Amino acid sequence: MEKVLVFGHKSPDTDAICSAIAFADLKKQLGENVEAVRLGELNGETEYVLNYFNVEVPRLVKTISNEVPAVYLVDHNERQQSADDIGKVDVLSVVDHHRIANFDTKAPLYYRAEPVGCTATILNKLYKENGISVPKTIAGLMLSSIISDTLLFKSPTCTDEDVKAARELEKVSGVEAETYGLDMLKAGTNIADKTAEELIHLDVKPFEMGHYTVEIAQVNVVDTNDALSRQKDLEAAINKEIDEKNLDLFLLAVTNILTSDSEALVLGKAAAAAEAAFNVKLVNHTAALKGVVSRKKQIVPVLTEELTK
Amino acid sequence: MEKVLVFGHKSPDTDAICSAIAFADLKKQLGENVEAVRLGELNGETEYVLNYFNVEVPRLVKTISNEVPAVYLVDHNERQQSADDIGKVDVLSVVDHHRIANFDTKAPLYYRAEPVGCTATILNKLYKENGISVPKTIAGLMLSSIISDTLLFKSPTCTDEDVKAARELEKVSGVEAETYGLDMLKAGTNIADKTAEELIHLDVKPFEMGHYTVEIAQVNVVDTNDALSRQKDLEAAINKEIDEKNLDLFLLAVTNILTSDSEALVLGKAAAAAEAAFNVKLVNHTAALKGVVSRKKQIVPVLTEELTK
Repeated sequence: MEKVLVFGHKSPDTDAICSAIAFADLKKQLGENVEAVRLGELNGETEYVLNYFNVEVPRLVKTISNEVPAVYLVDHNERQQSADDIGKVDVLSVVDHHRIANFDTKAPLYYRAEPVGCTATILNKLYKENGISVPKTIAGLMLSSIISDTLLFKSPTCTDEDVKAARELEKVSGVEAETYGLDMLKAGTNIADKTAEELIHLDVKPFEMGHYTVEIAQVNVVDTNDALSRQKDLEAAINKEIDEKNLDLFLLAVTNILTSDSEALVLGKAAAAAEAAFNVKLVNHTAALKGVVSRKKQIVPVLTEELTK
Repeated sequence: MEKVLVFGHKSPDTDAICSAIAFADLKKQLGENVEAVRLGELNGETEYVLNYFNVEVPRLVKTISNEVPAVYLVDHNERQQSADDIGKVDVLSVVDHHRIANFDTKAPLYYRAEPVGCTATILNKLYKENGISVPKTIAGLMLSSIISDTLLFKSPTCTDEDVKAARELEKVSGVEAETYGLDMLKAGTNIADKTAEELIHLDVKPFEMGHYTVEIAQVNVVDTNDALSRQKDLEAAINKEIDEKNLDLFLLAVTNILTSDSEALVLGKAAAAAEAAFNVKLVNHTAALKGVVSRKKQIVPVLTEELTK
């Protein structure tokens, strides 16, 4: 069988990387020729994970149609979050837990989305449905994905199914979620050595909301001041991004993983939409978003609602 | 829990009706308040099925947002094939076996698509995954869906999974697929009492292909002459549809369920695209499409390819 590449979104996070590796493993165990690749640089948290489980970093690719005619996607579906040349290949399969938008195919495909906290939770089901055991190392990666996406089960995106899958994967991997998880999350909050430009690109996702072009970035910290003490530099980097990509709105969510609150820094000509969406007043371009930790569940829907009014 | 409506596409076929009924049954067994409804008139085949199993015809609805805030979709996802006001409700769940296009949501959802011949084949898995037994009557409806969509296992869309599901459903329903199936399919080919206008609307689906607006209708017969002897009337009805909806192309596939071939009647200013797509010459607006029985697998992809070049 011809080789198929599998990958998560651009600006990959732990789920984008680890779910690609896990899906490739499942497909290989089913006899297919599949390689997990990545569309961007690893963040500190994912580096910690791959290092901890001694797993090779997936190969970085910029385009895919020069290598294969068909691909599998994990942890995303929206065109602008995928490979630049995604339109030139067939998408045979998607496993995801996000909204569906800017996605279409010519032919029927396998599409499995569930409104759970993490792609790995769905992959855990797929292993079972196919009667395949999750290898010990892969279980560690999948557990890491769930911890990352649910902020150690504290995010409102976390469902009973995520917790159940994590408990199963703890047993298989021999890793204790709470202890390992806090170390892993903290490894992702070390941003002292990042430039402002690197910081806003660590975990950024583009969206089309109505007629508006939006980017939402998120940075996890243990003290929001770690990022916001550099507000002037961050604003310069964001304004450069807005100019270059002709964005209407850029929202940077600085999320405190210990308190589960975020501080938003919002720039762009549609910034007022964020005030309406969150019912806050931006002061010096920032606002506290109490209890907001999930881009997918607490930021994207309300902003989309506001910008498509 | 608030009531949720579930329905298949406009111009419903047997799978659109029976999968809605089956999905409602599954959800009701899981404790939800769900009603199966339909977006259009039953065809002769589906009438035969509901009558055979003595199942009540689902209620006809024109709009949904006046009744419920959220819906489940089966057997379709494309906006133009769904309820007119689909944009005003939340789609919580989709079970389908078609391409994905013109579909988007604000929030994550449950989406289950597989490249199999019939929605009911996927529903058969969902019953199992949820640990719920398929009731005897529902098994008969699901078996009917599979027979209808795969033309009694002869369509190229039919997969091993469809055959396997059908064999399981035969046992549960106590119905023998081959005998029952031929009677059922023949019940759908009785078109003598239909006007030309009714005929082209029996099973018609709209598509957006690149910048072109296309409709593809299909009629099952046991002799293509049953339909094509009325070509002049059919052309008048099709040209009226083209004018009213400003279509670029209308393709009517008259499919002989005994020989598994189709005769295409193609009108509209983009009709030449059908010649290129199927590598045929239209003579008097018609062409024989040898071995073509599946709109989804053998018509939509090649026409889309041609019209998006």
